[in-house]
Parts: sequence; structure tokens; C-alpha cells
Amino acid sequence: MHRYSRDILDGVTSEQFENLKELVLDARKLSYCPYSKFRVGCCILTKDGQFITGANVENASYGGAICAERTTIVKIVTASSEQRRHCGDWLCLAISGDSLERCISPCGICRQFIREFTPTSFPIVMFNGDGSKYIIKTLEELLPLSFGPDDVNS
Amino acid sequence: MHRYSRDILDGVTSEQFENLKELVLDARKLSYCPYSKFRVGCCILTKDGQFITGANVENASYGGAICAERTTIVKIVTASSEQRRHCGDWLCLAISGDSLERCISPCGICRQFIREFTPTSFPIVMFNGDGSKYIIKTLEELLPLSFGPDDVNS
Amino acid sequence: MHRYSRDILDGVTSEQFENLKELVLDARKLSYCPYSKFRVGCCILTKDGQFITGANVENASYGGAICAERTTIVKIVTASSEQRRHCGDWLCLAISGDSLERCISPCGICRQFIREFTPTSFPIVMFNGDGSKYIIKTLEELLPLSFGPDDVNS
Amino acid sequence: MHRYSRDILDGVTSEQFENLKELVLDARKLSYCPYSKFRVGCCILTKDGQFITGANVENASYGGAICAERTTIVKIVTASSEQRRHCGDWLCLAISGDSLERCISPCGICRQFIREFTPTSFPIVMFNGDGSKYIIKTLEELLPLSFGPDDVNS
Repeated sequence: MHRYSRDILDGVTSEQFENLKELVLDARKLSYCPYSKFRVGCCILTKDGQFITGANVENASYGGAICAERTTIVKIVTASSEQRRHCGDWLCLAISGDSLERCISPCGICRQFIREFTPTSFPIVMFNGDGSKYIIKTLEELLPLSFGPDDVNS
Repeated sequence: MHRYSRDILDGVTSEQFENLKELVLDARKLSYCPYSKFRVGCCILTKDGQFITGANVENASYGGAICAERTTIVKIVTASSEQRRHCGDWLCLAISGDSLERCISPCGICRQFIREFTPTSFPIVMFNGDGSKYIIKTLEELLPLSFGPDDVNS
Repeated sequence: MHRYSRDILDGVTSEQFENLKELVLDARKLSYCPYSKFRVGCCILTKDGQFITGANVENASYGGAICAERTTIVKIVTASSEQRRHCGDWLCLAISGDSLERCISPCGICRQFIREFTPTSFPIVMFNGDGSKYIIKTLEELLPLSFGPDDVNS
Repeated sequence: MHRYSRDILDGVTSEQFENLKELVLDARKLSYCPYSKFRVGCCILTKDGQFITGANVENASYGGAICAERTTIVKIVTASSEQRRHCGDWLCLAISGDSLERCISPCGICRQFIREFTPTSFPIVMFNGDGSKYIIKTLEELLPLSFGPDDVNS
């Protein structure tokens, strides 16, 4: 596991990065995962300096599960403040699982969900379980040749 | 369209019911629905008197859509206050679409999602588009013989 | 667990009912469920006497799971024979899990999926794990006051 | 739009490729898409020379939609022949929409679903609406750093 440059995290201060790490690890406590026992936390840092957290919420019918990333995004998208909706308002999204070895990545469903609200240059930070390792990739790197709003002429 | 008794709304005051109606109609503004143009608002009233709102969030890949009810529930379930998670903490859930004629009902996906967190006696209030009409049903009435957590021995 | 009348199964012969039971129990073998270990089989009997089977297909990202009922329905809907698409073409849908005690019921997601393609009088047969017990309900009984195609003016 | 090398399609004959193109374009007719009017066809070529087709199946509750790729995969995974289940059994998966300009790509949900059943070297062929253009990518190229079965210790 290599460390990746943080250059991609344009506009995020070192202090914000440390907060992001702490908050995304903490967010795992919010997980409702009686079926998988697989806790995932998520934290989105907005341009106006807010940290919004979420976690995965499972269901007895497994297909009903909503991952940490989607949970966090719907919180922001349906928050009352109108300006928060727009893609430019988020600086980055971070996730963390419990594994110390691996930095888990967003599943394809969540990459698709992120795609709806961010530019493809949007950075995604993947932490391991204690925050000692991380990988940073853009959405474009995680979901190349994506299917998005432009494809359906909405 | 008949009016239904509000006896089922145990513990909800008239003032709270009026607030619920106003907030659920307002919540439709939070909807992100460029594909269906079908706005749905949701509001959950908790036992400690809080009103939590949400709306539907759609995706270019239609299957990625998350309805208003699920959006609102994940907000509460992943809120930091631990006690809010438990089923007993919610007094009722309300939804509203834009139709003046019809009081739209939760789709089956959302009924299943609600089932995970509430007793089957949980009341669901369905308003028409201006709040002049409503239907109240318990979850048991909307999802009889449900498949739930007990079925998977979690 | 009570036995229910089969009167609701209009047009299904005793021989077809026995075939349905055998096939739906067999269909559990087709299940891909490494995460839940919860096998579910499904069988749809069409008006022209065909039995179409399916099972649940899970995913490492739990929300990606597709239940047995939806798997079976997309098989029929996207089969080449045009006339099979229409609601009138199915006589009934049956499911079975592994529990000997309980006749598991379709989750809300699947009730919603069935709703798209059948009249509300459509019968659903729920078998226990060895077929010795069953419950029969109409879709209307399992998903009352449903949200369907008419609600979105498709 | 550039043409891509077909070298990646190991083991697929020119004749099979032509059949694949014809069948995936035809498969769009199987689409049930009254809400999006966005037809997508899918065709999987198996190692034993079979072509399995599917299409997208939508729902009044948009989140219930199942894309063409997932429809086609569940057909194969729950087909009775046991050996078809295994990843090695598929040579490639193709999709097509109606756009003449663009070769649409699988959404993230479907990339995740494919991930469950294939090696990351699995080739995906994306045709435009009349088959005159196509792009071929491996699953690894479309879903790098994927979250898969190994991550959940199934």
C-alpha cells in the first residue's frame, strides 16, 4: 500500500485533513449493519468548511441497503441550504472501513451516485481502519467513461 | 377520498400535526428529481419533538434513486444522537407529492425500509399536494405479512 | 400457520400446483447467496403453462442484491416472446425459503416490482421449506394502497 | 470516437463478434422503459458459444429499475446449468443504447454487479445505436480499485 500525493486535494488545509480523518473514523459508529457487521463511515467536506458524516444502513432485504457514501450525500442534497446542492460546494469525500490492511473503496453503486453531483475531478479519500494509510483518487479515476446526467438528456 | 381518524396518531398534538403538514409540503422543495419531475417530501416526527425532513434524490441510472422516506430515515439513523435510532423514538412519518387529487403512498421499497426501524403499529400519514386531504395507515396495514429482521436471524 | 384456500388460484390445476411446489423448492439451488446464506427460490406459472424459475443473486455491496422474485420477473419480461410481457399472462408467482416453520413472504422491494406487471388480484403463493405449508395472498393483500404506474402518468 | 483494438476479446471469432453486435442491438426491443424511454440492450457471450440477451426493466418507483446488464447476468447465474455460473464461462458482455453518436457505458451499479462474477480482465463492449462504432474496455479499466467479494470475506 503506497501513500499518494495530496496535491489532488486542492483547497483542503492540513488541519482540515486531520479533522476529516478523525471524523470519518468516528462516523463508523453510526453504522447500522447487523447483517454484514461491516461498518463503513463517510465524511464530506464542503467548501464552506462543514463536515457532514454518514454511515451504511442495512436492511433485512439485502438489496435495500444504503451505503455510507449515499447516506451522506442525500443528507447534503436534501439539506435546507440551497447552495449546498451544487457540485462545486464539496471539496472532497472520505470513507473508512475497519480493516487495518486495506483502504476500502466506494462500491460501483456509490461511484454512480457521487457522479450525479460532482465534477469528474472530485477527490475521494480512502482511509484504512486507523487512518494510518490512505489512497486519494479522483472520481474520473474510479469511474472512467462514466454514464451520467448528460447521457439521458435530462 | 375519505378522511381517516387520527386516533392512530397516538401522542401527536394538533399543533404538531399542523407543523407536520406544513413541513412535509415544504420538504418537496428539497427534491432532486430532474428525471421524473415527481417531487416527494417526507417528514418524521420524533418522540422528543423534532421534525426531520427529506426528499427524493434521483440518479441518471434510474435504479440509483433514493426515495424521500429512505432519505429521511438514513438522516435519523446516522445522526449522532444514539437514542434516536430506536423504533420507539419516532411518532409518525408523513409524505406528500404534488397531486391535489391523490394522497400518494410509500412505494414497496420504502415500506420495507421503514419496516427495519419501527414497530408494525407505526403510523404513516399520506397528504395530498396542498394538505387538504390525508390518509393515515399503520405500517402493518401497508405491508402485511412483512419480511423483516426476525426472518433472517440477524 | 394456517392453510389458506386455493380458490384464489383461479385456473391453476392440482397437477400444476404440485409442479409449482416442486419447482419452487428446486429453484433454491440456483441461489447465489454467499453473504446471507439465505436461499430463496421463485417460480412463475404463465397462462400458456410454462414454469419460469429464478433465485436471489447477492453482491459484495449488499445493496446490489436482486431477490428471487425480481430475478424471475426480468427473465420473463425480457424473454423474446412478446406476449409474455403482459400482466394477464401470469397465473401466479410462488416463493420458498429454507425455513420449515415459516412461509417467507416477498420483501417490499419485490412487491413493488410485481406491482408493475400484474393486476392487484394477482395471487402469490408462499411455501415453507419442504412445501408442507403454504399461504396464498393477492398482491392487493400484500401491498394495499400501492404506488404504481398510474401514479406517475407513464 | 475512436475504434479500439479487439485484441482484448480473446477467443471471440469475427463471426461471433458480428452475431454479438446484431443480438445486442436487437435486445433493445426487450426493454421495458416507459419512464425513461431509454432502451438498453445487453448480450453476454459464454465460452460454450451461447448468446444470452437482456434489457432494462423499469419501475414506477424509479429506484426499483434493473439495468440491462444486471437483467442478463441474473438470467445466466440462475440458469439451471451449474457450470454457467462461474466467471470463466463468459467471454464478454456487450451493451447498446439508441444513440448514434455515443457508445453508452455501464452505470456504476452494473459495473459492481459484473464485478461479482468475472475476473477484472473481463472485456466489456460498448456499441453505439447502429453498431457502427464501439469501445472495448476491461472491467478493471471501468471499475479500478474495485470493492469486491474479497473485501467482505465471504
